[in-house]
Amino acid sequence: MSKERVVLAYSGGLDTSVAIPYLAEELNAEVVAVAIDLGQGGEDLEVVRQRAEGCGAVAAEVVDAREEFAVDYCYPAVAANALYMDRYPLVSALSRPLIVKHLAQAAIKHSATVVSHGCTGKGNDQVRFEAGLAALAPHLSVVAPARDFAWTRDKAIAYAQKRDLPIDVTTKSPYSIDQNLWGRAVETGFLEDLGNAPIEDIYSYTADPAQPRDGDTVVISFDGGRPVALDGETKTAFELISELNYRAGQQGVGRIDMVEDRLVGIKSREVYESPAGIALIAAHQELENITLEREQARFKRGVDQRWGEMVYDGLWFSPLKDSLEAFIDHTQKHVTGDIRLHLHAGKATVTGRWSDASLYDFDLATYDEGDTFDQSHAKGFVELWSMPAKLAAERNERVKKGE
Amino acid sequence: MSKERVVLAYSGGLDTSVAIPYLAEELNAEVVAVAIDLGQGGEDLEVVRQRAEGCGAVAAEVVDAREEFAVDYCYPAVAANALYMDRYPLVSALSRPLIVKHLAQAAIKHSATVVSHGCTGKGNDQVRFEAGLAALAPHLSVVAPARDFAWTRDKAIAYAQKRDLPIDVTTKSPYSIDQNLWGRAVETGFLEDLGNAPIEDIYSYTADPAQPRDGDTVVISFDGGRPVALDGETKTAFELISELNYRAGQQGVGRIDMVEDRLVGIKSREVYESPAGIALIAAHQELENITLEREQARFKRGVDQRWGEMVYDGLWFSPLKDSLEAFIDHTQKHVTGDIRLHLHAGKATVTGRWSDASLYDFDLATYDEGDTFDQSHAKGFVELWSMPAKLAAERNERVKKGE
Amino acid sequence: MSKERVVLAYSGGLDTSVAIPYLAEELNAEVVAVAIDLGQGGEDLEVVRQRAEGCGAVAAEVVDAREEFAVDYCYPAVAANALYMDRYPLVSALSRPLIVKHLAQAAIKHSATVVSHGCTGKGNDQVRFEAGLAALAPHLSVVAPARDFAWTRDKAIAYAQKRDLPIDVTTKSPYSIDQNLWGRAVETGFLEDLGNAPIEDIYSYTADPAQPRDGDTVVISFDGGRPVALDGETKTAFELISELNYRAGQQGVGRIDMVEDRLVGIKSREVYESPAGIALIAAHQELENITLEREQARFKRGVDQRWGEMVYDGLWFSPLKDSLEAFIDHTQKHVTGDIRLHLHAGKATVTGRWSDASLYDFDLATYDEGDTFDQSHAKGFVELWSMPAKLAAERNERVKKGE
Amino acid sequence: MSKERVVLAYSGGLDTSVAIPYLAEELNAEVVAVAIDLGQGGEDLEVVRQRAEGCGAVAAEVVDAREEFAVDYCYPAVAANALYMDRYPLVSALSRPLIVKHLAQAAIKHSATVVSHGCTGKGNDQVRFEAGLAALAPHLSVVAPARDFAWTRDKAIAYAQKRDLPIDVTTKSPYSIDQNLWGRAVETGFLEDLGNAPIEDIYSYTADPAQPRDGDTVVISFDGGRPVALDGETKTAFELISELNYRAGQQGVGRIDMVEDRLVGIKSREVYESPAGIALIAAHQELENITLEREQARFKRGVDQRWGEMVYDGLWFSPLKDSLEAFIDHTQKHVTGDIRLHLHAGKATVTGRWSDASLYDFDLATYDEGDTFDQSHAKGFVELWSMPAKLAAERNERVKKGE
Repeated sequence: MSKERVVLAYSGGLDTSVAIPYLAEELNAEVVAVAIDLGQGGEDLEVVRQRAEGCGAVAAEVVDAREEFAVDYCYPAVAANALYMDRYPLVSALSRPLIVKHLAQAAIKHSATVVSHGCTGKGNDQVRFEAGLAALAPHLSVVAPARDFAWTRDKAIAYAQKRDLPIDVTTKSPYSIDQNLWGRAVETGFLEDLGNAPIEDIYSYTADPAQPRDGDTVVISFDGGRPVALDGETKTAFELISELNYRAGQQGVGRIDMVEDRLVGIKSREVYESPAGIALIAAHQELENITLEREQARFKRGVDQRWGEMVYDGLWFSPLKDSLEAFIDHTQKHVTGDIRLHLHAGKATVTGRWSDASLYDFDLATYDEGDTFDQSHAKGFVELWSMPAKLAAERNERVKKGE
Repeated sequence: MSKERVVLAYSGGLDTSVAIPYLAEELNAEVVAVAIDLGQGGEDLEVVRQRAEGCGAVAAEVVDAREEFAVDYCYPAVAANALYMDRYPLVSALSRPLIVKHLAQAAIKHSATVVSHGCTGKGNDQVRFEAGLAALAPHLSVVAPARDFAWTRDKAIAYAQKRDLPIDVTTKSPYSIDQNLWGRAVETGFLEDLGNAPIEDIYSYTADPAQPRDGDTVVISFDGGRPVALDGETKTAFELISELNYRAGQQGVGRIDMVEDRLVGIKSREVYESPAGIALIAAHQELENITLEREQARFKRGVDQRWGEMVYDGLWFSPLKDSLEAFIDHTQKHVTGDIRLHLHAGKATVTGRWSDASLYDFDLATYDEGDTFDQSHAKGFVELWSMPAKLAAERNERVKKGE
Repeated sequence: MSKERVVLAYSGGLDTSVAIPYLAEELNAEVVAVAIDLGQGGEDLEVVRQRAEGCGAVAAEVVDAREEFAVDYCYPAVAANALYMDRYPLVSALSRPLIVKHLAQAAIKHSATVVSHGCTGKGNDQVRFEAGLAALAPHLSVVAPARDFAWTRDKAIAYAQKRDLPIDVTTKSPYSIDQNLWGRAVETGFLEDLGNAPIEDIYSYTADPAQPRDGDTVVISFDGGRPVALDGETKTAFELISELNYRAGQQGVGRIDMVEDRLVGIKSREVYESPAGIALIAAHQELENITLEREQARFKRGVDQRWGEMVYDGLWFSPLKDSLEAFIDHTQKHVTGDIRLHLHAGKATVTGRWSDASLYDFDLATYDEGDTFDQSHAKGFVELWSMPAKLAAERNERVKKGE
Repeated sequence: MSKERVVLAYSGGLDTSVAIPYLAEELNAEVVAVAIDLGQGGEDLEVVRQRAEGCGAVAAEVVDAREEFAVDYCYPAVAANALYMDRYPLVSALSRPLIVKHLAQAAIKHSATVVSHGCTGKGNDQVRFEAGLAALAPHLSVVAPARDFAWTRDKAIAYAQKRDLPIDVTTKSPYSIDQNLWGRAVETGFLEDLGNAPIEDIYSYTADPAQPRDGDTVVISFDGGRPVALDGETKTAFELISELNYRAGQQGVGRIDMVEDRLVGIKSREVYESPAGIALIAAHQELENITLEREQARFKRGVDQRWGEMVYDGLWFSPLKDSLEAFIDHTQKHVTGDIRLHLHAGKATVTGRWSDASLYDFDLATYDEGDTFDQSHAKGFVELWSMPAKLAAERNERVKKGE
């Protein structure tokens, strides 16, 4: 009888490398390692794949999900102006459901019954993995060695050395880092002291905004809420985000330093870089300012916020997230046009907007000749608009006197 | 029998100067001019006051409302993180209710029956004036010459020249400008073309952020959500905002360029400067990040948004705005602590936070030794947290198969 | 040159009959009368049509919009559980946009440039008419004689008698009544005193719930949120609502007596009857209870409320209403199944529910044998679920002690 | 050295009776039994107390919390119109935090270190107990035998018989029942089949609404949102709710049959009775209809909903719940007046309302003589109100043509 199979989300690092032989033994199973390319850069993923085999994986695969990530995960986040707590562009939160999707597919392909990931028990990512799997592949069970078997770094090093695994155990970042096309998350280490400012060392996607340099200007074209071109040149989503990461990153755009509310109930200090993310959302918001009707825009803020919370909270694959997206998609129909952004010294500033679907009406807005706004309507409007508050004020007066 | 009296919100400019003799004649009334000092700077208000007399006002007064404005209008906006459409710190919107309050008081003092203001019929400010008066002094009637008698600039100049009013009619800003302690609003002119970037000329509170210079660092202390000290030195609200306007303004912080949704139904292009406003809200938001509980913070975003909309929409004196404030005030009890802000190149960046009321728990958050977070709870949490989405996914599968 | 044409929303009553010759003279125009059949019952609409001609209309038409009203206006209200202020099923509010749509079509057909309606200036319906026209046919101008020419009943009677119009001016309801397939609205008269209870006389769609009688039981089948069958028999929307109006009405179901907030700023006393409306919404809500996921259902309440407010406020043809509907439609995919309702003594009570798309899982829910809920997850869930509140409570204690 | 002490929430039933000797042995501890009188009626609580002693409790106490429950828990629910999922008046959810409060006090008094309750691991009440304790007394640990030691009814019976405990093990309700002053909850048994209608047997607080009988009319007086008198007679909160339970219950008012979303992720079928709860909320809502300003009332619906969710979800003692209450309390200032309710055949119908703080203005509302509403304001109001939707409709048309 053949052994059970475990599909492991493989990063190439110490923890998941050690997990290969460990899970094989512990579960008496075969381990299939799957590395997902989300544009995280760093090590060559073919090298990573071979390392998994070197550690004992019966199969090791690299999935190129870069364009899929850009189109199906990053762009919906732009449409939702997704900034958790008004700041964080959901870098890791967006990637987990896509990883989960490919793990579930690999599980089917390799007839696996178990999925494994390297998350700890106090972060958000375990929730995103397991809530995603619960929705996509509820028949699979999940094992998270760091959480379920209380693995620590020291334990992993000892294990790797004893087994002579092909992995360098000497280098260690003082931080915990996660990165992909949409950005980079840095935590732990000296950042756990909330009074410590970040140092330049921890940044990788962005240049120091304090260094004097010439700014850059870019025109981003949107079609139905989705970025489609830079400076008039059509790009795939992956190309566009990559190029904008570079250009905005060169200007120091996209750094975030905040304390955030984790789903598991604690607050944590996080530093992020998301050059393209911050630039695209700034541009998209202003394009919405000229193409969304006022009440639609007001209500959408609440929808956007909830969308971000759902994704942050690991509920990408859930009914409410999908229904919120139906709302958002409906609003994006006319979010088409061009936004000129000036990138400089850590800021992405809108300096021009053009749209054939604009609701800005020069003739109504202008105070110069050609003004078509009929001011005679205003008096009646103000009168009825303020009537409920007026009646309440009179009532308050009346009650006060009566007392 | 004595004549009716009109209390006029007097700015010293052409429009309201001309209104003095015009209203006197048109309404066969005596005009009382009231200028309110909201820290707008510019011309000496005693000079302004004398001009009103020179134009025929039977009385002319200057009200120093600077500290009141800072304490009772700007600081509640900080507590509400008030940014209309996520951008605009409500500069003009905050000032109008306070002006209205003093006009209503002047009307009582001078036994006036009419109040007059210089707003047009297509802006928000007429609503703020008249909705405010409807609530505070519903017995007063309102006259707005620009709107109700269709006054234009040309008409005003001709009138001023004919009457030989003591006002310079030759200088004219190409923009419409409103300013006070909390910021500065610039509109019209070439800005009405949405593709035109602002030029340096239009700014007054902020230096060019593109000019290389050394940054500045400031520590802002809050007590119960209200700023109380800069760099450890206790300040009144007016002092604190003034000083921060200078320091953040020197670094180019607080420029906003946006298209916004007016209450009267049109979109308009606005440029704002609010150095202290932007800096204080950035600091306050991060202090909330460490002192508000997660669900409280999530719900408060919606409350904050609605508060800003109510104020923008002219409903400062209204039941809902007051009830929202009861919510906000309740949340601010523990928003006490210090935030270190780095000001540079147009950005105000939080680089440190300290609070005795912090909810950040180092021992729970750390991944180093001393970690007190019990990871064994996580599995059960994730399981139940994701159960509704899981059941829905299974249902969807089941229904799909059944079809 | 031919005369201008006015399309008049014609009810057959005194006010709109008088408007025909009056508008013709006043505007030197030809009047086209359009009566819309929304299932309001009452007078034969062919008689109504002829009366319009008798009053001088150059053309008079009856549009049978009953099925369209049921399908495109009443059923979306069911999907939205639309009860303004948790009570009012939007009887008149739903009908106005459809009337407007047909008026706009008639205006095109008859080359009319003006539309006229009989609403007063203090009700909601004028807004619904004119906001609808603004969206659908912004080139048309609107005249409302009751509002714009200050017509009163006495004036209308005198005019009708002088012109010898074919309309009975002697009968007058002591109430103002509006009715259609979805229900009936009664206002004014002695109901304007909030202390007066309604009397049986004012009701027409419902029998007295206080009279003893046997109850009735009906099974309503829904498909994707839309009612499709009664007691297993497939019905068109118009048939289904009509039949349910009769059956629920016989049991006194659907009476509402409330004070409501009008858009024009005042409160008014209203009495409604909506037998089918109340029954269908009760059934639909319970079907949602078993088919919507928890978070989706929670958020939908806010969306439903806003949808109802938008429709009440006359903004049926507006971007936000459409985007809310995109959300609602998305949620309705699995709202399919049967609800058994018991109708008796003014109440519609759910007594059974069945759905192939149900999220109710007997095995998880039961406390009997076969329970599959793993209670071991609960402890960890509770621990992390309550952690933020716990940390806040500890902080509050700590701060209190420190003071 | 003295033994540890456990404070047990004692109901007098089989499960918690058995828990006394079981916990004593299992934890080598002394058990203090605390029964809380929340107006649940049923067995004499002195008898219950003695039974606890008979089962081996070292101390047994009855806390009379009836008035406290009515004032501090039921009345805030009235102010919040608290109906979870628009139906359920939070019967059990309101009681748990008060029980927790008294358990925590008893733990201090008796120097206990452990608290125990009888909840299972799949219900909401475990969360309410433990989240409450986490907030009020985080130093106490919690034991729930049914959940943590997997106790079942059969096991409990065997244990009780073996130990000869003074408890009747033969009678068993086919349902799981919880009751208190605010209502009664019935679940499990044949109700777990969603197609089964409830039978008369399961009701205890309400008479059969189908039985013909004369109705009853009651006038409820509110002061600042709180009920203070019935038919003009001042009552304490406990008296008022008790009397109204009787009178409304006699008329069959307050029955609810629904499927609800539990916090632990499953749906469950519940039947409730809450005669006074349903009657008071109906009356309170209508009093709000005449005393709350429109926008305040609209926003409050969302606040009320969230308050109910927080309480349902076990977060009574939490920052957001308290902040929501600050909002609600602020709105209640003028919710003062009388509501006449007709109680009959399962319905509580408002038939009259009177308030010195009413915002209903007869002169503005009436269509008879004395009408003070100035209809001339309406045209301008409608024009600007509908402008954003109009501009959007024109844009849509324009874009469509351009395509």
